[in-house]
Amino acid sequence: MVANGTPAPRFASGCSELQASRLQLSLPLPDVLKHSFQVVDGPPSSSAGNPDEIAKLFPNLFGQPSALLVPSDTSAAASDQSLKIGVVLSGGQAPGGHNVISGLFDYLEERAQGSTLYGFRGGPAGIMNSKYGGFDMICSGRDKIETPEHAEETVNMLDLDGLVVIGGDDSNTNACLLAENFREKKMKTRVIGCPKTIDGDLKCKEVPTSFGFDTACKIYSEMIGNVMVDARSTGKYYHFVRLMGRAASHITLECSLQTHPNITIIGEEVAATKQTLKNVTDYIADVICKRAERGYNYGVILVPEGLIDFIPEIQQLISELNEILANDVVDGDGMWKKKPGSQSLQIFELLPQAIQAQLLLERDPHGNVQVAKIETEKMLIEMVETELEFRRKQGVYKNDFRGRSHFLGYEGRCGLPSNFDANYCYALGYAAGALLHSGKTGLISSVGNLTAPVEKWAVGGTALTSLMDVERRHGKFKPVIKKAMVELEGAPFKKFASMREEWALNNHYCNPGPLQFQGPTSNVTNHTLMLELDAGA
Amino acid sequence: MVANGTPAPRFASGCSELQASRLQLSLPLPDVLKHSFQVVDGPPSSSAGNPDEIAKLFPNLFGQPSALLVPSDTSAAASDQSLKIGVVLSGGQAPGGHNVISGLFDYLEERAQGSTLYGFRGGPAGIMNSKYGGFDMICSGRDKIETPEHAEETVNMLDLDGLVVIGGDDSNTNACLLAENFREKKMKTRVIGCPKTIDGDLKCKEVPTSFGFDTACKIYSEMIGNVMVDARSTGKYYHFVRLMGRAASHITLECSLQTHPNITIIGEEVAATKQTLKNVTDYIADVICKRAERGYNYGVILVPEGLIDFIPEIQQLISELNEILANDVVDGDGMWKKKPGSQSLQIFELLPQAIQAQLLLERDPHGNVQVAKIETEKMLIEMVETELEFRRKQGVYKNDFRGRSHFLGYEGRCGLPSNFDANYCYALGYAAGALLHSGKTGLISSVGNLTAPVEKWAVGGTALTSLMDVERRHGKFKPVIKKAMVELEGAPFKKFASMREEWALNNHYCNPGPLQFQGPTSNVTNHTLMLELDAGA
Repeated sequence: MVANGTPAPRFASGCSELQASRLQLSLPLPDVLKHSFQVVDGPPSSSAGNPDEIAKLFPNLFGQPSALLVPSDTSAAASDQSLKIGVVLSGGQAPGGHNVISGLFDYLEERAQGSTLYGFRGGPAGIMNSKYGGFDMICSGRDKIETPEHAEETVNMLDLDGLVVIGGDDSNTNACLLAENFREKKMKTRVIGCPKTIDGDLKCKEVPTSFGFDTACKIYSEMIGNVMVDARSTGKYYHFVRLMGRAASHITLECSLQTHPNITIIGEEVAATKQTLKNVTDYIADVICKRAERGYNYGVILVPEGLIDFIPEIQQLISELNEILANDVVDGDGMWKKKPGSQSLQIFELLPQAIQAQLLLERDPHGNVQVAKIETEKMLIEMVETELEFRRKQGVYKNDFRGRSHFLGYEGRCGLPSNFDANYCYALGYAAGALLHSGKTGLISSVGNLTAPVEKWAVGGTALTSLMDVERRHGKFKPVIKKAMVELEGAPFKKFASMREEWALNNHYCNPGPLQFQGPTSNVTNHTLMLELDAGA
Repeated sequence: MVANGTPAPRFASGCSELQASRLQLSLPLPDVLKHSFQVVDGPPSSSAGNPDEIAKLFPNLFGQPSALLVPSDTSAAASDQSLKIGVVLSGGQAPGGHNVISGLFDYLEERAQGSTLYGFRGGPAGIMNSKYGGFDMICSGRDKIETPEHAEETVNMLDLDGLVVIGGDDSNTNACLLAENFREKKMKTRVIGCPKTIDGDLKCKEVPTSFGFDTACKIYSEMIGNVMVDARSTGKYYHFVRLMGRAASHITLECSLQTHPNITIIGEEVAATKQTLKNVTDYIADVICKRAERGYNYGVILVPEGLIDFIPEIQQLISELNEILANDVVDGDGMWKKKPGSQSLQIFELLPQAIQAQLLLERDPHGNVQVAKIETEKMLIEMVETELEFRRKQGVYKNDFRGRSHFLGYEGRCGLPSNFDANYCYALGYAAGALLHSGKTGLISSVGNLTAPVEKWAVGGTALTSLMDVERRHGKFKPVIKKAMVELEGAPFKKFASMREEWALNNHYCNPGPLQFQGPTSNVTNHTLMLELDAGA
């Protein structure tokens, strides 16, 4: 098979010895993908919510069954049929994307000889602008395919039989819209999605995890583990670590399960129990005071970057500020302070000065307060400092509090994929090839039974419409794949909740160390996946 | 042998699977340490500078020869002689400290049966306050042994034959002062140092590297490599990474050699070429503009945390500010601005507002400006932003500049030691035991020939006085082990300088990946050490 298209500029990067050894590795495949297989359809599917609306939005796809690959003497697809396939990385970076492409490439080479694989460059924009290249580093992008016409033009021009969209909830929703559009127009191009996001919030029964989550959490946990050993040895700092995850706190929860910090804030719990910023601050200060009584004047605290989004009073403050900033002058005399509600003003006054200034001064191009720019961990440090100062004056806290802030984000989105992610992605990509080859569209590549050895993994595709619900936006129903939040009744959170008091007051720090590709620890997967699969079994 | 003393509180930490597998590992020893050996003295030594003053400061130790361990049919020290030894971790954290202790422990167990090893807890303060424990996690501390009387009391009380001080330049200077003091008083306690600092600035011909540097640089380089892949894939951010190293830029240089960033600022070069902050800013802006012409609107920039200390004009500004802040009121009307010299005022006005505020508002307990609190990478981002805005108005730069800041510090000081550091530390500790056992004092444990396999490593001890020079402080000569700075004529810097233009304009990013304990990359050591040893060979 040929990796074809306009030549992509050579990726002039040096390649480290470890990268080279990973590139040479041949990855294991699930047994069902090693030999002839057939695609067996399951029962008709529905949607995650509002099936009537989803049916209206996807008249050509709604209700289609999920597919399962099973061993067979004869193959479903003719091996002499060659395919033209495009692949695109969509949205935020995640370790393993290129393993999906490798899996797809190897499928085509082994099962559909004479095929051509195009990589769209720079994400969905590559489809819309017909920027594509051979099999090379194709980058990702955050554009959305809002105008299917451009995508149509490109796939027609390239005469594509199939398109593989590697992305998160939004990208897979758009993949399904494309699949619907192509089928409606009786185009031959089929579309298959793959679940990618380090945030871990794209998952359901058939798609037990999104790729990248395992690697990212292991990288973050390595760093947290190192900081923990430092905290204990140095004995004088509280480290506040902010972790990626704006919408859901899966990363923070997983890192907590891997490392056992003294305090872990889970956004979903803060929202469910309607905690205020003061409540969160007091909780942290309480633990610090109790630890001080035991002689521990150090600790590690994990916070999800989306914490502020989970606190309703802050949301209220921000919307009121946006209103005021749009219409009034923020004067030095503070006259503007008569405008917000008394509760919002009270919260504003509670915030550290630097955060106040940030809220008032830094705005996005639409003039809105930039919540994303607030460094939650630094805000918490200052609030805890103020609270402890207050307690010191009351005589209930006698120690020095020294906070140190960390943000772990970009460091984990592009690491070399763990063995789990490498194998999982390779299987997802290989399966995407198989699904396209056997004529499927509007499915997300699904690999299950993940606690078993790779050979025993189940492989198939799940109807994307079955993951969907609708949201009302601008008076219209828009289809969405709902983000999977941390379930307070789920096994991972319950495990954490059962341990957190012990972890808070004593030191049960666990340093998982750097991600290993060989040796006894190299094939261990993450706690979240194991606990969820065990609970579901 | 017994690990003895008042019981240390159990280290209640969980132990990860990888930690457990590392703990079970038996480490290789240099051949000379595997069998009987004798200690052979070299020629008399001198000092690194001002030998007359060093001779006066160390009348009992000055001139003593370095020692080399060589194979022998009979052992120098009687194996039935039991020893009482104390060990202390002094100064900042570094990966491998406990491997030194393991080496020392194993020496005593194998070669001096019936011995007792005491770990002083919390660093040198543990010696002064007689806080010690069995062989356990003993933590480190930054106190200095300024009052030898307390140390004397403790070592006499414990009847110590020897003390091993694991530390950096300051700690080893103090170890030598203790050795001198003990010998002067005809006490039996001997003192041996071990070279520890992630900063890599304690080294000389006989002590080719300090432990911890290898591991820390590999951890930082893993993170930098990940950020590079992210930068290239995302295509829209300039990542400014500040790295540990206040006095010397070895870490920044080593990480640059491992990862090939677009820009690396080396403090020693900034100082030697008398660059101003504006020069540094312009250099960064120049590279960004040239990259923009090639279509690259992203990049990675490494900066040592000590950068500001290398820029004389900033030092001048800070000392003038300290003067003003001590005597005048910093008034809103800016009357105080008439005080500083015009050059200093110009530099002050050049600084971003947030940095200006930080300089004026945040002081240490002595009322001094807190230079250490300045986030150099954020300051540079703001200065580059301003410069590029100016160039945009001139029409010579047309892109959006988006900076992202990172500080890699605590994440690297307490990682699981690399194979190199684990083996190096184990040999250093084992050698420290051998040196004490054969009656040596005032030496630093030295392991050489490090590019060869462990079996061929050379083992001995170097006279601490031979590393020393004097500095005049408060009218007195104080002995110091001079920090080893990045040599602009040295092989590592020259290698970097020969590549940096290519790295600046093209993308030669190298992602070394996570530190491996098994497999082909696990025994590779760092570039700095290899290049220096090759050049010296």
